[in-house]
Amino acid sequence: MIDYEKIFGQALDKVKAEGRYRVFTEIMRHKGKFPAATFFSEDGEQKDIEVWCSNDYLGMGQHPDVIDAMHKALDETGAGSGGTRNISGTNHYHVELEKELADLHGKEAALLFTSGYVSNQATLSTLISLMPNCVVYSDEMNHASMIQGMREGRAEKKIFKHNDLDDLRRQLMETDPARPKIIAFESVYSMDGDIAPIEAICDLADEFGAMTYLDEVHAVGMYGDNGGGISRRDNLQHRVTVIEGTLGKAYGVMGGYITGSTVLIDAIRSYASGFIFTTSSCPILAAGALASVRHLKKSSLERDMQQQHAAQLKQMLADRNLPVMPSISHIVPILVGDPVQCKQVTDILLADYNIYVQPINYPTVPRGTERLRLTPGPLHGPDMMARLVDALDQIWARLGIVVRKAA
Amino acid sequence: MIDYEKIFGQALDKVKAEGRYRVFTEIMRHKGKFPAATFFSEDGEQKDIEVWCSNDYLGMGQHPDVIDAMHKALDETGAGSGGTRNISGTNHYHVELEKELADLHGKEAALLFTSGYVSNQATLSTLISLMPNCVVYSDEMNHASMIQGMREGRAEKKIFKHNDLDDLRRQLMETDPARPKIIAFESVYSMDGDIAPIEAICDLADEFGAMTYLDEVHAVGMYGDNGGGISRRDNLQHRVTVIEGTLGKAYGVMGGYITGSTVLIDAIRSYASGFIFTTSSCPILAAGALASVRHLKKSSLERDMQQQHAAQLKQMLADRNLPVMPSISHIVPILVGDPVQCKQVTDILLADYNIYVQPINYPTVPRGTERLRLTPGPLHGPDMMARLVDALDQIWARLGIVVRKAA
Repeated sequence: MIDYEKIFGQALDKVKAEGRYRVFTEIMRHKGKFPAATFFSEDGEQKDIEVWCSNDYLGMGQHPDVIDAMHKALDETGAGSGGTRNISGTNHYHVELEKELADLHGKEAALLFTSGYVSNQATLSTLISLMPNCVVYSDEMNHASMIQGMREGRAEKKIFKHNDLDDLRRQLMETDPARPKIIAFESVYSMDGDIAPIEAICDLADEFGAMTYLDEVHAVGMYGDNGGGISRRDNLQHRVTVIEGTLGKAYGVMGGYITGSTVLIDAIRSYASGFIFTTSSCPILAAGALASVRHLKKSSLERDMQQQHAAQLKQMLADRNLPVMPSISHIVPILVGDPVQCKQVTDILLADYNIYVQPINYPTVPRGTERLRLTPGPLHGPDMMARLVDALDQIWARLGIVVRKAA
Repeated sequence: MIDYEKIFGQALDKVKAEGRYRVFTEIMRHKGKFPAATFFSEDGEQKDIEVWCSNDYLGMGQHPDVIDAMHKALDETGAGSGGTRNISGTNHYHVELEKELADLHGKEAALLFTSGYVSNQATLSTLISLMPNCVVYSDEMNHASMIQGMREGRAEKKIFKHNDLDDLRRQLMETDPARPKIIAFESVYSMDGDIAPIEAICDLADEFGAMTYLDEVHAVGMYGDNGGGISRRDNLQHRVTVIEGTLGKAYGVMGGYITGSTVLIDAIRSYASGFIFTTSSCPILAAGALASVRHLKKSSLERDMQQQHAAQLKQMLADRNLPVMPSISHIVPILVGDPVQCKQVTDILLADYNIYVQPINYPTVPRGTERLRLTPGPLHGPDMMARLVDALDQIWARLGIVVRKAA
């Protein structure tokens, strides 16, 4: 007889041997006090910490507009939606939010998914299945959810070098002009914090008759005068075929979405298994996201403060000769370059300084580029930044970390 | 140049030509008044309706314990989790809920997913990828999410006839004993309301050295003295390798989960892309689900009332010679057998009787078995049932529907 437990045990041994077994850090964030949180250790102890690695980039997860809207919706319509979108699960809040998101990106229509992961996976796999013989051009740094969707769709996939227009052009030229084509890429890449050349990619798409699929999950709420992302900031929304976003990062809630033409959105709505056969999001999440999107449409305060703090932190790190990587976005990565040291740094930060930063190791980033990924927000003030930079400075000295050239 | 809009337009034409284009019914359910809701028509009119097709089977979506727990958690920890489980998104509520769910099913461990769909898809595809050369035996009526997971895993798949032990045995016998095997099935099948022979399937699994994967999404909260599903009711929890469930149906909130041995759960946690690379559920959802699971662990009132109403409704329908299908579970399907008539019935129910039932057509059910799928709950009282049955009786006469023999 087969010993299944042994098979799974061996799979775990492999992860452990590679130094990438993950122990989750259990916390409780405190509404009204972000980035403060309580840390729960494995032996049941609790202590106060500051979180420096959240994707609630703007603190909207505690914004009074969002919280109030969710309390109100909870009392109005209860907890769950009660069904799939087709079978009793289309709540008025879902419809309102889809209208708001279409407007945010200057598109005709939008479609909600239970997560950003699902929106990428379901949309890309469905687009591919609707276009026989299509070819997908995928940036080599694309997120796992996009890769999963392309894999599921089983199209021919051509991976182009990260943000490399020459490589993309070369691959487009090699392909039969009669075949349908999708160029799939992100605006802000989460781990390096760099930004795609959206306009030039759209130019190539036009030249070769490709459609474009742009993941803006790390940019929505964060860029553009209304929070519509890099494509909004650069006035390129009309040139991108599909803009995908999330409600779980800068908007502070949960869920994913796509926006595009009425016909395209209707086709995904009608064919995507991962959309059709799943219970729709709780209406309270749509209510909270609606308040968050509306707030960040009119208020730039949070975005501006975040950018200011990110620039300030980068400068403070550079002043101490700490290897901050050359991110041009709101994300602040610090190179360590070794998985064991990377984890040591963050263990000491948590144990001795009550600062929580998750180490980012392979496979999330390539081996040799292990890093800390800091996400300063509007609520990470100068004192907190000073404490963080002091702590890092001390730990770098204590561990004798060789400062690797960042980039 | 390729006209992408045309491609998507043609895909929609196909759906329309087959009579399965879906227009979503926009509603607002009212907390404290389920199954009452407001219907929003496409031209912006609103009216009061009663919902008869929700999967919030027990009305837990409005239960005071659930609502209170969510209000409390919202004020305590805010809206979103702020990250993936590994990067600042493991909230104390997630950890508590996983412990509670493991206990519910008598298993060592549990793992939360953003939806039941994702839990099936991610778990099955990962199990398969961890066991090279494995074979999956899949009941032909399995849910789309399980099919998607098996497809993604790219194992050899053998489909056995619905709940057919002989066919399953035959296929197991044909396979090399040395190959890893998974038998994937559901306890309560959602559209027919029939129940799998779990014990006999586990016997076969033991005989042939297979592991078992049981989807209990339509049974958790509904069966067993603690709500642990059919496997609990029949005292078979220890015999099933993986029990999968949802928090979005009887528990009234949102999300999915698996339970199993510590090692298996840890392997899925460590390898499943759809678990790792996604923002974790809002902590308030975990808080609400925790309250719901705990309530239904100790209270059988909701389950008992639901079963009583389902039995009563079946009898009332049979008394009027309406073709109720022979479901042995809480689901009450009525056969229409024609997609156009099926939609006519439900259109009239909504327009003239203010009763909302979604027509169930192909591909959700096989062609020729189009049906109404009624889900009476503890809150659908005798008056409501009488109104529904009267309405159906009148519509059947008005449309001159030939009563087909229901199975």
